[in-house]
Amino acid sequence: MELITIITALALIQFVLFGIQVGKMRGKHEVKAPEMSGPPEFMRMFRIHQNTMEQIVVFVPSLWMFAHYFDPKWGAGIGLIYIAARTVYFLDYRKDPKSRGRGFGIGFAAMAVLLVGGIVGAVMKML
Amino acid sequence: MELITIITALALIQFVLFGIQVGKMRGKHEVKAPEMSGPPEFMRMFRIHQNTMEQIVVFVPSLWMFAHYFDPKWGAGIGLIYIAARTVYFLDYRKDPKSRGRGFGIGFAAMAVLLVGGIVGAVMKML
Amino acid sequence: MELITIITALALIQFVLFGIQVGKMRGKHEVKAPEMSGPPEFMRMFRIHQNTMEQIVVFVPSLWMFAHYFDPKWGAGIGLIYIAARTVYFLDYRKDPKSRGRGFGIGFAAMAVLLVGGIVGAVMKML
Repeated sequence: MELITIITALALIQFVLFGIQVGKMRGKHEVKAPEMSGPPEFMRMFRIHQNTMEQIVVFVPSLWMFAHYFDPKWGAGIGLIYIAARTVYFLDYRKDPKSRGRGFGIGFAAMAVLLVGGIVGAVMKML
Repeated sequence: MELITIITALALIQFVLFGIQVGKMRGKHEVKAPEMSGPPEFMRMFRIHQNTMEQIVVFVPSLWMFAHYFDPKWGAGIGLIYIAARTVYFLDYRKDPKSRGRGFGIGFAAMAVLLVGGIVGAVMKML
Repeated sequence: MELITIITALALIQFVLFGIQVGKMRGKHEVKAPEMSGPPEFMRMFRIHQNTMEQIVVFVPSLWMFAHYFDPKWGAGIGLIYIAARTVYFLDYRKDPKSRGRGFGIGFAAMAVLLVGGIVGAVMKML
């Protein structure tokens, strides 16, 4: 499961980097903590970070369950698609929130495959 | 641990479904991203989703630690209570935020049993 | 891995206690759900809780990956530093958000060591 550890860590590093960007936007636009609203550029980064947290909370356990009940290599490949899609989501959303659907959709689909694959694999093993 | 995988996946699917509802509310009330405030119906769904994330972050590792140090079947049963309580929380909160205590309380208690059970089990094994 | 289970549970209990504080602040300042803004004392506690969620989502898997590929005892020690730093972050932020850097920084560094250590350990084992 070394491969799955690496993919997990890469997804977490991406999430941490988004968080650092939120901090930078706080500084740039003087959005002082604990304030949560500010100019669009801050709000976009804030939401990119929050939305990525909503995904990663599902992604990490799904990745491990999929890798365990199906195949680590397939899990790692789908995990890479998730990370790539989240990068596209970040780049698109930052420019124009209306364009965020593409990266969101592909990342969500990758996550859903891992989640549904994990539960199907576990049910099949029980039967 | 197939049973625990299935309970984990069900709780994650519930969380994802709540997220999809937030998206629908964004569309219905034209709350455009990255906006985080809108009419009550949107706000309620937004908070149901966020609060469920706060719970699931604790629920998933607690479920696995409890299942490992106590019993997977008991863990799965308590996990089902958590998922059922979160459904009640969703239905109640959506109608009237003041009524959210019931579902929240039962779900929180289930989560707390898993969390405290996990730590007690680990301490007992160490001694 | 009993030690790692105990550290995980302690970090989760800390996060849950912060959540209970948010609830108390809601009551004290009559910030009714689903409202997310209120007087500074509420906002600070709200952000302490949210920021701790952002950290714990990374901390828990990183702790386990580090413990698995390096050493559980070192992992537990660094995990304790993270929990202590988060306590400092809570106490500082509550008094004055501008002073939150110290606790945040040490906690972030501990988390980063676990995360980077986990990925380095996994890569080394693959080679």
